[in-house]
Amino acid sequence: MLILPSAAVALGHGETHGVLALLATAAICALLGLLLFLLGRARQEKQVLYARESLVVAGAGWILVSLLGALPFFLSGEIPNYIDAFFEAASGFTTTGASILSNVEAMSRGLLFWRSFTHWMGGIGVLVFILALVRNQNGGGFTLHLLRAESPGPQVGKLAPRMRQSVQLLLGVYLALSVVNLVFLLAGGMPLFDALCTMFGTAGTGGFGIKNSSMAGYSPYLQTVTTVFMALFGVNFTLYYLLVRKQWRGALKDEELRLYVGIMLGSIVLIMLSVLTSGQLPFGEALHHSAFTVSSVMTTTGFATIDFDLWPEFSRAILLILMFAGSMAGSTGGGIKTARLLILWKSARAGVRRMLHPRSVKAVHINGRPLDDAVVKRTHQYLVIYCGLTLLGFAVVALDGHTLETNISAVASCLNNIGPGLGLVGPSANYSIYSGLSKVVLTLYMLVGRLEIFPILILFAPSTWRRKA
Amino acid sequence: MLILPSAAVALGHGETHGVLALLATAAICALLGLLLFLLGRARQEKQVLYARESLVVAGAGWILVSLLGALPFFLSGEIPNYIDAFFEAASGFTTTGASILSNVEAMSRGLLFWRSFTHWMGGIGVLVFILALVRNQNGGGFTLHLLRAESPGPQVGKLAPRMRQSVQLLLGVYLALSVVNLVFLLAGGMPLFDALCTMFGTAGTGGFGIKNSSMAGYSPYLQTVTTVFMALFGVNFTLYYLLVRKQWRGALKDEELRLYVGIMLGSIVLIMLSVLTSGQLPFGEALHHSAFTVSSVMTTTGFATIDFDLWPEFSRAILLILMFAGSMAGSTGGGIKTARLLILWKSARAGVRRMLHPRSVKAVHINGRPLDDAVVKRTHQYLVIYCGLTLLGFAVVALDGHTLETNISAVASCLNNIGPGLGLVGPSANYSIYSGLSKVVLTLYMLVGRLEIFPILILFAPSTWRRKA
Repeated sequence: MLILPSAAVALGHGETHGVLALLATAAICALLGLLLFLLGRARQEKQVLYARESLVVAGAGWILVSLLGALPFFLSGEIPNYIDAFFEAASGFTTTGASILSNVEAMSRGLLFWRSFTHWMGGIGVLVFILALVRNQNGGGFTLHLLRAESPGPQVGKLAPRMRQSVQLLLGVYLALSVVNLVFLLAGGMPLFDALCTMFGTAGTGGFGIKNSSMAGYSPYLQTVTTVFMALFGVNFTLYYLLVRKQWRGALKDEELRLYVGIMLGSIVLIMLSVLTSGQLPFGEALHHSAFTVSSVMTTTGFATIDFDLWPEFSRAILLILMFAGSMAGSTGGGIKTARLLILWKSARAGVRRMLHPRSVKAVHINGRPLDDAVVKRTHQYLVIYCGLTLLGFAVVALDGHTLETNISAVASCLNNIGPGLGLVGPSANYSIYSGLSKVVLTLYMLVGRLEIFPILILFAPSTWRRKA
Repeated sequence: MLILPSAAVALGHGETHGVLALLATAAICALLGLLLFLLGRARQEKQVLYARESLVVAGAGWILVSLLGALPFFLSGEIPNYIDAFFEAASGFTTTGASILSNVEAMSRGLLFWRSFTHWMGGIGVLVFILALVRNQNGGGFTLHLLRAESPGPQVGKLAPRMRQSVQLLLGVYLALSVVNLVFLLAGGMPLFDALCTMFGTAGTGGFGIKNSSMAGYSPYLQTVTTVFMALFGVNFTLYYLLVRKQWRGALKDEELRLYVGIMLGSIVLIMLSVLTSGQLPFGEALHHSAFTVSSVMTTTGFATIDFDLWPEFSRAILLILMFAGSMAGSTGGGIKTARLLILWKSARAGVRRMLHPRSVKAVHINGRPLDDAVVKRTHQYLVIYCGLTLLGFAVVALDGHTLETNISAVASCLNNIGPGLGLVGPSANYSIYSGLSKVVLTLYMLVGRLEIFPILILFAPSTWRRKA
């Protein structure tokens, strides 16, 4: 059903092949959905879903959706290679925004709409996924998203004991922010089609543009609106809920929010100074583009107003680091997440403190509450697997022989769901340079990053399948 | 006193300025040593050294030794800039082997000898430092080196309860291996001066060469001897002690050793295949140079027989990853250490297992014994600080504007005490391209890496000095 708006857009522009491709996909999806629904019912009666099963379902589900989402691109013939289409669709649903298209503007309107719309749906998928994880607390490294619930404010779990209510809550925030974003864009004179696509990319922190120059062609007002909304969509959505309930103090005192804003402002200043020193831009423009780029990269959106790959080395280094940092937990953004950085930082500081005062037994606190040791441990294990996967991906992608910075930033960009990288995959370039193998690996990395590693990892773990036999 | 052999070499070659510079340094060292000794006595009577103090002393001591070790280079006028001389001396003592000299062969023999000799002394310093850490177990992340002691074999602590005995044990192994190495080199027809300097660089896993082409000019036999001995000096020295006591099984079953050998052989095969595919070298040479380079980089020595920076991208990616991996704990090598990788890997695997079976409570075992949770935690905190420092150094060094791969590999190379990096600091280049600030930062990183982070970190922590007031 979700594919129909795109078909309507295609119809509106008289693009027959697009309409057919989209409708064919819709039919296939409907059939598959019915099949899965019947299978699911038959199964549900038999057994309860355990942690492992639910993770496997999540992993397999996202892969399936990406495989299906690739069909419109493939069937319409606009992306003739199915691996490329799969890359593009996964990039959309995971809200990455990495593209293999060298000329976006050549694509038909219906498919452009579909491409951007996958971002928006991906954003919804992420929010639902987060809640599923929260619900399934025993299942691993995800108490993270509950950090907020442990703050002095109300607990998500308490206020909305039922899953359905929590979903409505987060989706309500998502929808409301999306509409406000759209209104601001339209107020700046952006055509409806452009505004919708831009909003989809911003809300999902995706970053697919509908122009070859991404956002560079739009007015400074539209760019600034996007800067602000990218940053807003990178904030933990439960904070907005606190705001709605007029608990300003609880929200503004949140340590993760403070770190998020701190990193963002600090990076903007550093990059602005670096760009100013290089003499590439005058003060106003340096500030404008630094703010946009930092907001875009840190929230893992990936829009561009300028080719930041041409900026001084120091700026590029900061951007590469920001790619890994990512947005806040509980948002539509990707990356390691500010909440994890906060936990890692506090734990490391506690470790150094223990070196100085071996007998002190001070627990790590976040938002005034002691942090569970198990959460710290899981966050650490997460980081280890994260680093390991980054290095592994970097080595595999290096088989194609492109430069070191291209490879490192391509892996960073896909794993953290950003979109553009540096060098040959910079904002003015695309991922078509990579071989089929690398594209598949990078596609998997988008999914791994999006689902916080474990579902995809478990899907590929031999023991998952062995035990079933 | 340790400076006198170098002065003798200089005298033997009639290099007056070198003799004077070395003797002047010796006099300054003697005076300072006397002063510190008297101060130390006065202080020792007053109070016991706590963990914090001993770490501060270690950190300050290594910096002081590097500052003094720089004097011969500076006073002789052969390295006219004192920051450069400091860089070179710290690179020697920390057994890094990174150089700012573009023409090593222009240096006088006495100072070349001194330069290589700092590696050998650095190796001794590392071994003594390790024992000091083991003795001071409460002090933090260092139970690591005791991993071996927890193996079925005898415990270092039990067999040699006194510090003095343990030092003799490790230094005995060091000396014996050094002599054997020297004999093998001389047997291959290497001149005594060259053999001594090469042995110093190998034993300390340092890597300063006395030729501009590093080891490329020597015969394949001499290169192979060095390949083998680099690998041997990267092994945990307590394992040799087990061998001497004829406990072969305990040593060969050691999980860290198996991982070390596994990573090394795996990397040699991968790089050999990559070099073969590129058609740069025939099979025999590809194997020979892959083995040498992997042994050199993984043990953090840094000798080169070939410009591996010209190898295919995949080989370079593997080498960059190896730079971080490093050698075994309890050796003279640097890096993250195989023991830590083992702990991180096992902990991460246990984390994934817990996701699959939330109720299983399986402890992490190494060499058949359960691993203390506190050790795992400290290792994790170590990794976090390690990653943080790598990124910080990368950003600071990027201020100089060199390429991303140069900057990343320079930081990796210095922090892990290797020597050459990739790109502009590759094996055929040197660190003279960097500004004073970057050189100081990289010098500090060598010390940070060498002393396993904490001593230097604590030395610069404001709280260390605040509390004393």
